[in-house]
This record gives sequence, C-alpha cells and structure tokens, in this order.
Amino acid sequence: MGMSMKTADIAGRLRDSIRIETDAWKKRGIEPSLAVVLIKGDPASEYYARAKEKTAHKLGIRYRLTEFEPGITQSELLGHLGELNEDKSVHGIMLELPLPRHLNPSEASGLIRPDKDVDGITPGSKLACFLGTRGLYPATPQSCIRILKEFGFELKGRHVVLVGRGETVGRPLMPMLLREHATLTVCHSHTENLARHIAGADILITAAGRAGMITADMVHPDLVIVDAGINETDTGLTGDVSPDALQRVKAMTPVPGGVGTLTTLILFENLLKAVGMQIGEGGLK
Amino acid sequence: MGMSMKTADIAGRLRDSIRIETDAWKKRGIEPSLAVVLIKGDPASEYYARAKEKTAHKLGIRYRLTEFEPGITQSELLGHLGELNEDKSVHGIMLELPLPRHLNPSEASGLIRPDKDVDGITPGSKLACFLGTRGLYPATPQSCIRILKEFGFELKGRHVVLVGRGETVGRPLMPMLLREHATLTVCHSHTENLARHIAGADILITAAGRAGMITADMVHPDLVIVDAGINETDTGLTGDVSPDALQRVKAMTPVPGGVGTLTTLILFENLLKAVGMQIGEGGLK
Repeated sequence: MGMSMKTADIAGRLRDSIRIETDAWKKRGIEPSLAVVLIKGDPASEYYARAKEKTAHKLGIRYRLTEFEPGITQSELLGHLGELNEDKSVHGIMLELPLPRHLNPSEASGLIRPDKDVDGITPGSKLACFLGTRGLYPATPQSCIRILKEFGFELKGRHVVLVGRGETVGRPLMPMLLREHATLTVCHSHTENLARHIAGADILITAAGRAGMITADMVHPDLVIVDAGINETDTGLTGDVSPDALQRVKAMTPVPGGVGTLTTLILFENLLKAVGMQIGEGGLK
Repeated sequence: MGMSMKTADIAGRLRDSIRIETDAWKKRGIEPSLAVVLIKGDPASEYYARAKEKTAHKLGIRYRLTEFEPGITQSELLGHLGELNEDKSVHGIMLELPLPRHLNPSEASGLIRPDKDVDGITPGSKLACFLGTRGLYPATPQSCIRILKEFGFELKGRHVVLVGRGETVGRPLMPMLLREHATLTVCHSHTENLARHIAGADILITAAGRAGMITADMVHPDLVIVDAGINETDTGLTGDVSPDALQRVKAMTPVPGGVGTLTTLILFENLLKAVGMQIGEGGLK
C-alpha cells in the first residue's frame, strides 16, 4: 500500500504564509487585489469564479468580480481588460475561459499585462516559463512540482514520465522539470506502449484528462505518481490514474485532495508575486 | 553496417530551390539580402562570417558584412542593429556571437526584429518556436528533423531520445519534435544510465557538444542517429557519437557532412521566409 499524498497540510501552511504576506502588504498601504472577469452562461466558469471568491475572502485578499452578459462584444471585453491593466488598485487579472464562441480568447488573454497575469496564459508569461526568466508561471505545473518537493521526492537525475502535452499543464511542465534536472519523457496520444515507458520511470505525472487511463497493472512499487487530471465522471471527480493503483506504488496524490487543492492557493501566491513585480523595481510600470 | 546519412544530395536540392526562389524575388524587384554583423577578434566568428559570404555568393543572395573593431561600445552596436532593423533593403540580420566581454549579447540580439531574425535567437522567435506559431526557427533543429524526413524515418509515435538541452539546439528541438508527435525523452548531464534510455529509443539525436560521448556499445541495430554535435578535436571535427557506432546502427549522420551541411542552407531558407514575412501581409511593418 503506497502513501496517499494528501495536500491538506501543505495547503494549510501555504494559506498561512499567504495571509502573513498579505497583511505585510496592507501595512505598507497596499491591498492585494484580484480582478476576475466572467462572461455569464458557463456553469463551470461560474463555479470556479465563486470558489476563488471564497478563497480570497479567507485569505484577506480583495476580490473584484466583473460579470458580463453572454452578448458582450470583443471590443467591450478588450476595453474592460485594458482598464484593469491600467488600474493601479488591481494586481492580478483572471479571465474565466472558455469564452462564448463569438469572442476571440487568445486576443483577449494576450492583452493582459504579463505582470498581472496570475494564470500565466499570456505570451509573455509563457516565454518566461519556457526560458526560466522572471514571470508568473501557471499554477497547476507549480503545484505538481511543489508536492514532490514537499514530500521529499528529489527530481534531479530522476526519470520523470509526463503523460500529456496540453497548453495548461503538460507544456509548461517540460521546461520546469528540466530546470529541476529531471530526465524527462513526454508521452501523449500518439505514444506507443505507454506501459513500457512507465515501467522505467521513477516519477509519473499525468495531465491527460482521461479518467482512469493509467491502470494498476501499469505501475510498479518504486513509482511516485502525481495525478494532475481532473475528470468529471458519473461517480464524481476522478484523476487520470485509477485509484486502486495506490496499492501498487510508493506514493500517489489523491483526486480530489491532491494537485487541485494546492493549485488555487498558488494562484494567490502568484498574485502576491504580481504585487511585488508591480511595486518593486523589476515590475512593468 | 548502417547507412551513413550524408546530406550532400539533400543540400544540392535545397540549394537549387533557394536559387529558384531567390530569382523569383529578384524578378519582382526584390533582392534578398543578408546583413552579418561581426566584431573582429574571434577567429571562429570570422571564419563563419566568410563561409556564409561564400554560400550567399553561390546562391545569388546579397551579403552585406559590417565589421567593427573590438572596442565598439554597446550603444554603437545597438545603433547599428537599429539601422538594419529599419533598412528595407535588408531582410535578414545575423549577429556573430560570442561578443567581446564588455558587450551585452542578449540585449543586442533581443533588439533584432523577429521577422529579420534568421538565426531564431530573439525572444519573439523563441516564443514562436515554443508555441508553434509563425516565425523564424533556429536552423540546426530544423536540419535534424529535415534529415530524418528526407531519409524516410517517420517521427510520429517513434521514441526519440534527445541528448542535450542547450539553448541553440536541444531546447528548440523539444517543441518541434512533440509537434511531429514523437514520444520524447530529454537526457542531459544529470541523466543517470544514459545507455538504458538509448536502448529503448527508435531515434537518437545528440546535441551535447562532447566528442565521442556515445560509444558503439550504447547503440543497437534498430537505432537511427542524428548527430548535431560539432566538436573540434586534435584529429579534426567530430560529432557526439563515436564514428564506429555506424557499424552497429540502422543509420547515422556523419560529422562533417551531415547536420552542419544543411544548417547553413537553412539559414538562407529562413532568409527567404523572412522576405516573405516582410513583403507579405503577415509581416511586421
């Protein structure tokens, strides 16, 4: 029976440190503030926007939600994002995706100032993540690496198999894992014999978005698994790894209660980093 | 005995197609033109600048070399690059690196317009290569993939082991290989048991810059090797793979006569792409 890497304790400590840093900014007269832009009509987006509001409230961070009707035009959306870019009382901007079909998401998200881009979705943030320069990196990949470090699993020299090369998780994880000096294998839908690659891995990170695609017979007792998959199924949220694989590995994150638990908090950690970039010398003015 | 993937024939065909396209531009009144900026004093840079001049001459491409004394200031260099950016008769700009110590290479190369950046070294070009969007990609990685395709070795679903994660070759190869739908393993100086990874590979690409680091006992009869290493040794130029490995693999590029032969020509292919970006609708004006 492997160790279930529940992240509640790590999340608790991270919450405390975010609160302390938030208070420190407030004492300097700066109130860290997140602006979320929501186009009504997508239930998942509305749910996530509310969830972030609750977390912000608990952390003492100002949260400003702007809701638009589904009929909003692209230029109205761009205009609003431009205002948030200019607004010195706003330090982080999140645009809830997906957008309605008549809107252009890459133009809209690309307009966000990189030093307010707490989601790490602008070209400037992506380039920083790829090159390893200063910037706001996406939260889920950060969460995966943080969990491994917190549980004491070294990355340097280890063979990491990453399943998934998507824009949000897999792609940014590649340069981040290589900077940790892991040997990295990237698998995806065209990979032949996935089981053979996993057989040689020390660490498996899944971000494929396919419920139960990694089965118990594909894993081994020396394997550490970080499951970044979040799949809605009839029986609730599940990861990319079948839960019974836990019996046959060294350690594995649960879903829910693993990667996702930390991801939301890392968004707010990014927000505090954004405050530093805007207030400090290195920030875009 | 494996096949030696000499690239002379591919280079010949590429040279012909570059000449034809160059002539077509000239008939439209546009003379494709490469500007090379050289700071005197580095023998290798001076050699490469002359070699490109010869190739340009053979291809019918205008070549403009600007040589500066080693004492040039950063602002003089930036000023010259700025003029080349503005000059409509110049379509490609190459800054020969390394620069003397008192100059800042990343500031200088970062100033080059992405649509004139035939070397693919500016942040804009790197982002395009990472994301797979329109832009000028570095020549050596393009050369590696071109050779595999020209010799009929499919990348889709194949397991590629890449040795080296450097800025010029290894790093840009990663997204390019994944877009070809290869399963990709990236190995480097911290990798433990490199031989085990190579044992499972269909294709090996080396860009480590260490002469003979891959020995004949590490390879196998089903392996295809592209050697992008260029190492100066007492016995001349050698790759990262010991030449006697050819006896034990399916196919392998020679050094010299393999990747490098094609790389210089791809620079000029990039130049023609740059002309298209500047003249066509999609170019930066």
